[in-house]
Amino acid sequence: MDNVLIRFIERPVLENAVLIEGLPGVGNVGKLAAEHLAEELDFIKFAEIFSKFLPPQVMIGANDTIQLVKHDLFYRRGTEGVRDLVLLTGDYQGLTPEGQYELSHETVKLAREMGVNLIVTLGGYGVIKIVEEPGVLGAVTSVDMKPKLEDAGVIFRSGEPSSGIIGASGLLLGLGSLEGIPGICLMGETSGYFVDPRSARSVLRVLSTYLGFDVDYSSLEKKAAQIDEITSRIKENLEETETHERPDDLRYFG
Amino acid sequence: MDNVLIRFIERPVLENAVLIEGLPGVGNVGKLAAEHLAEELDFIKFAEIFSKFLPPQVMIGANDTIQLVKHDLFYRRGTEGVRDLVLLTGDYQGLTPEGQYELSHETVKLAREMGVNLIVTLGGYGVIKIVEEPGVLGAVTSVDMKPKLEDAGVIFRSGEPSSGIIGASGLLLGLGSLEGIPGICLMGETSGYFVDPRSARSVLRVLSTYLGFDVDYSSLEKKAAQIDEITSRIKENLEETETHERPDDLRYFG
Amino acid sequence: MDNVLIRFIERPVLENAVLIEGLPGVGNVGKLAAEHLAEELDFIKFAEIFSKFLPPQVMIGANDTIQLVKHDLFYRRGTEGVRDLVLLTGDYQGLTPEGQYELSHETVKLAREMGVNLIVTLGGYGVIKIVEEPGVLGAVTSVDMKPKLEDAGVIFRSGEPSSGIIGASGLLLGLGSLEGIPGICLMGETSGYFVDPRSARSVLRVLSTYLGFDVDYSSLEKKAAQIDEITSRIKENLEETETHERPDDLRYFG
Amino acid sequence: MDNVLIRFIERPVLENAVLIEGLPGVGNVGKLAAEHLAEELDFIKFAEIFSKFLPPQVMIGANDTIQLVKHDLFYRRGTEGVRDLVLLTGDYQGLTPEGQYELSHETVKLAREMGVNLIVTLGGYGVIKIVEEPGVLGAVTSVDMKPKLEDAGVIFRSGEPSSGIIGASGLLLGLGSLEGIPGICLMGETSGYFVDPRSARSVLRVLSTYLGFDVDYSSLEKKAAQIDEITSRIKENLEETETHERPDDLRYFG
Repeated sequence: MDNVLIRFIERPVLENAVLIEGLPGVGNVGKLAAEHLAEELDFIKFAEIFSKFLPPQVMIGANDTIQLVKHDLFYRRGTEGVRDLVLLTGDYQGLTPEGQYELSHETVKLAREMGVNLIVTLGGYGVIKIVEEPGVLGAVTSVDMKPKLEDAGVIFRSGEPSSGIIGASGLLLGLGSLEGIPGICLMGETSGYFVDPRSARSVLRVLSTYLGFDVDYSSLEKKAAQIDEITSRIKENLEETETHERPDDLRYFG
Repeated sequence: MDNVLIRFIERPVLENAVLIEGLPGVGNVGKLAAEHLAEELDFIKFAEIFSKFLPPQVMIGANDTIQLVKHDLFYRRGTEGVRDLVLLTGDYQGLTPEGQYELSHETVKLAREMGVNLIVTLGGYGVIKIVEEPGVLGAVTSVDMKPKLEDAGVIFRSGEPSSGIIGASGLLLGLGSLEGIPGICLMGETSGYFVDPRSARSVLRVLSTYLGFDVDYSSLEKKAAQIDEITSRIKENLEETETHERPDDLRYFG
Repeated sequence: MDNVLIRFIERPVLENAVLIEGLPGVGNVGKLAAEHLAEELDFIKFAEIFSKFLPPQVMIGANDTIQLVKHDLFYRRGTEGVRDLVLLTGDYQGLTPEGQYELSHETVKLAREMGVNLIVTLGGYGVIKIVEEPGVLGAVTSVDMKPKLEDAGVIFRSGEPSSGIIGASGLLLGLGSLEGIPGICLMGETSGYFVDPRSARSVLRVLSTYLGFDVDYSSLEKKAAQIDEITSRIKENLEETETHERPDDLRYFG
Repeated sequence: MDNVLIRFIERPVLENAVLIEGLPGVGNVGKLAAEHLAEELDFIKFAEIFSKFLPPQVMIGANDTIQLVKHDLFYRRGTEGVRDLVLLTGDYQGLTPEGQYELSHETVKLAREMGVNLIVTLGGYGVIKIVEEPGVLGAVTSVDMKPKLEDAGVIFRSGEPSSGIIGASGLLLGLGSLEGIPGICLMGETSGYFVDPRSARSVLRVLSTYLGFDVDYSSLEKKAAQIDEITSRIKENLEETETHERPDDLRYFG
């Protein structure tokens, strides 16, 4: 069986295109952002990627139909002032390190064949606290890309994340760079405790400024409000529990 | 060494055949059902599948002879109103995700070469409680297959199982579908605590109605009665223990 | 890099030969037996097997020299009434299931090329208690091999070990059988707590009767006496500890 | 994707060269030593090694640029009395046993092509206590290499380390030896608790004596002083804690 199997619905030929990646990860920030983009900007699905490095699993859709776990590829032809775009999202990341390399390698290969000459990967940056207005941290394949990104609102903190970038968001840039394709990673600050549509919005705001398109965020804001409600309810419950079980004079020992 | 090694006893040529899979899994429902079918409907074994993705292990048979762990393939030529059938069962599922893909890929390839044009996978659906009359949940590769299955007693619950279907029961359908072979998964409700012949019977009842054959369930019912006896004895012991060690007035803290 | 790399010192041509395997395992019974045989019957080393499926490690010998972990192959030409023998032992078993299959596959291939037509694998059978006179359990690839083995003192217990035989001792027989080479597994009863030279002696006694050679066991008995001394010292210490720390009237809670 | 991908900056042709390896490991002794050497002796980087057996990760440099995890290769042409040198260091060791074999195999192959005829691997030897003047333990591929090494201050302790040498420091010698390249492992004693620049200095002192070059150790000594300060501060804190929380008369229960 092939390591990676790409099934094309159509094979669009693009020019000067940007590949945007958003796969599952910390706070699901990248995946939320990519899916929002696909929907709001009317991207067209053109390929599905299957692989033995993804979980051996099928998903059940709303109509009880089975779908093998996969990555999805979308495109959107350029409009006034906006370049051709390719979008990658999916159910899972590769299961093993080797599998992650293989999947990213095939994606970079395909991107190059399609005319991609910039890769932007989207993800979350865990800060272990809840952030009201998440900032967007950046990393680049060459230093001359920084000023324009800083203009778009990207923050650069020397050497952060100190653990590097793990998974597809890192590998697509690392392997892309070996193939001569420059790249950017945009990481939205997120607690790491919940899926974080607010962080996804922050990332998309920066990205839209950088690439020159407009996005409506209302559906993402609705999701954010839902998560807020859940988290504040959990918080209340926790506080009640604390009040009942740990009176103030004993709090010192907590 | 080849990834997957198929040893043929004979190579039957079939027409319009159905592949039925029942490998080990939750409650061993699929394997119990497949083995019962093989015996009751006089299936003929035609091949064994060995693989380095199965455990590195031999089994010891009743006559002290060694047998490398394997999958077994059986067939049964069609009779009045019943299509040609192929049956897959075996000792283990593939050990790694990659191995599961390889094994299912080779099985689908073989099935297609043999004239299979429908795949039915059998399994258990863990509900974490004991069910007297297990229902049979279904999932399909295309929505038009549902009505006839509902007529046969299959239940469809939108988006369930929410975790998808893991292992051969999912992959054979997912990979089969990529090759143009439609498929059905039948999942018998089962506690998940014990092997469950009663759930296997439920699954077979639905399957036999759908495919139009008759099965005698007496040996499966005997197994179910044995399991019932064991579980009720365990339950009694647990209740006695509870009575002795946790008097009612302390139960609140349990 | 090749999966398995065989370096030959010489390439003996044998006839009607028996491959005897003793790699590390339960109680190290197989390895102890094989090493004892290699020494006592003046086997000649003819090949070393290296593999990326063995640990990524070198061993340090007595003269501070480095040796990559490996399997060793020895041979001994037949003498009056004794067939040509090949012996396999080594530092480790393959690290992964797939690696175990690859290593056993290459060994069977080599054995067949060399003229081997019987495989005997040696191992321990964990019984979780200390056995004074360890019996030797057998398993065979075909039932007609049993009578001669029973004459040599081998015990057959239907369906035991119930978990089958895991690792090279199983795979060499399972894969050998697929290639038409019959095989025998001899498992010496052993506690599973210590390396067990006494169980190795039991296994070799049966093997020597079956194959018609003589072995001196004195060095193996010396090792057994050393282990006995260690285990009885540990036992004494445990009993003392129990006496001191758990007086009889508290034993109920132990 | 290739298992191992070597990107050359230049392809120096060397003669009678020595490959020196220092990858991450116990106390990071090998990596510290190799990096110190690269800097102090003005080595020139000539290649980078990427591999799917390394972590699927990019590192973030000081200027916020991304770099795929890798191994780095340096060289230094021979000077009066000093042979041509090749230096290998990197971010990580291979993630899996198989990956470690593949990486070392490719490195040995490259080394041989470049004219390397001696391999020296550097590492730490964990002694689970803090050592003021770390000794340097040796292991060799042939016994005749020992006298000259003993003259340079290397200690040989028969059969140590008893667990062998794990990872690249072992494999490069084991695989090199199979290709006819002799090798030496130099292991600096180290606690195993901290990165240990002092142990790296010990290793380099022995190596420089053996190969006939001079090194300035001041930057390594500065790092050692920093580590000393950190460890002594931790030690003080621990002692204070002990004094406060475990008065002497209770120490018995500690």
